[in-house]
Amino acid sequence: MELVTIIGLCAATLTTSAFLPQMWRTWRTKSATDVSYLMLISFMSGLFLWLVYGIYLKSLPIIVANSFTLFFNLIILWLKIKYR
Amino acid sequence: MELVTIIGLCAATLTTSAFLPQMWRTWRTKSATDVSYLMLISFMSGLFLWLVYGIYLKSLPIIVANSFTLFFNLIILWLKIKYR
Repeated sequence: MELVTIIGLCAATLTTSAFLPQMWRTWRTKSATDVSYLMLISFMSGLFLWLVYGIYLKSLPIIVANSFTLFFNLIILWLKIKYR
Repeated sequence: MELVTIIGLCAATLTTSAFLPQMWRTWRTKSATDVSYLMLISFMSGLFLWLVYGIYLKSLPIIVANSFTLFFNLIILWLKIKYR
């Protein structure tokens, strides 16, 4: 595996895992009031576009980071709707 | 400008601007207690590695997104230290 891909995968791991505390807190407190729908949906559309960009560039780190982060934010969105 | 770069720049704008509410709230409330140092520093190291990755790939969207997000998070870190 190329060095640049390893750098990208380390970046992906660090920035993606940064969302775990937020997701855990939302799950534990059953509330996501500090996250607005507008912010969540605009952020998720950005993640989706990054995914398209990563697929286009055939960049594994971009694909991995953004699919996980998109998945985490989908859970946050689901929790936000469920515990309105 | 290529379509893929436009997609990347749209993704960059959406995911970077998602940090503005957090920065504004930290600035307004003069407190960042809901953001841990560990999360902030691990996230910022990830952003720095993304920056290295973007420079290596000569990808304008990755460079733009991660330098702005890194800058925003530096401000959040500064505010967090200042208003301990």
